Amino acid sequence: MPRVVVHVMPKPEILDPQGKAVAGALPRLGFEGIASVRQGKRFELEVEGAVTDEVLATIREAAATLLSNPVIEDVVQVEVEGEAAH
Amino acid sequence: MPRVVVHVMPKPEILDPQGKAVAGALPRLGFEGIASVRQGKRFELEVEGAVTDEVLATIREAAATLLSNPVIEDVVQVEVEGEAAH
Repeated sequence: MPRVVVHVMPKPEILDPQGKAVAGALPRLGFEGIASVRQGKRFELEVEGAVTDEVLATIREAAATLLSNPVIEDVVQVEVEGEAAH
Repeated sequence: MPRVVVHVMPKPEILDPQGKAVAGALPRLGFEGIASVRQGKRFELEVEGAVTDEVLATIREAAATLLSNPVIEDVVQVEVEGEAAH
């Protein structure tokens, strides 16, 4: 079954406590050289049938409304696995 | 500053309640044609200086120990933004 991957990240201006916590832990655990960390979400959607433009449009809309919170998050990428990013 | 993106997903055999919840909501909101959804994490790490092989090895180790829970999650990809995936 073809798969579409949706990448969601917190908006740059939004405080990212999870990312900050990870960034703070890294040097304590000996991982140096990382200036900052931001944590977002990755969704893998298995699609019934071919990934047509219409299906991609549906997924983009679902990404903007259900998979992300448009107030604090951006959909940064929607890619059909195995194809170049759209 | 160069950026490395780490992708973490639940292991295939692990129950993914968040993904199931999203998959269940999609048809109710009119988004048809999606057979299943899995939800994982995406980390963006800003790196001080160049992304050398040594830095990448450090990030891979941090990904396997801090950014993911090896019991229930897999690090599915580590990519230097702007370069082909490693």
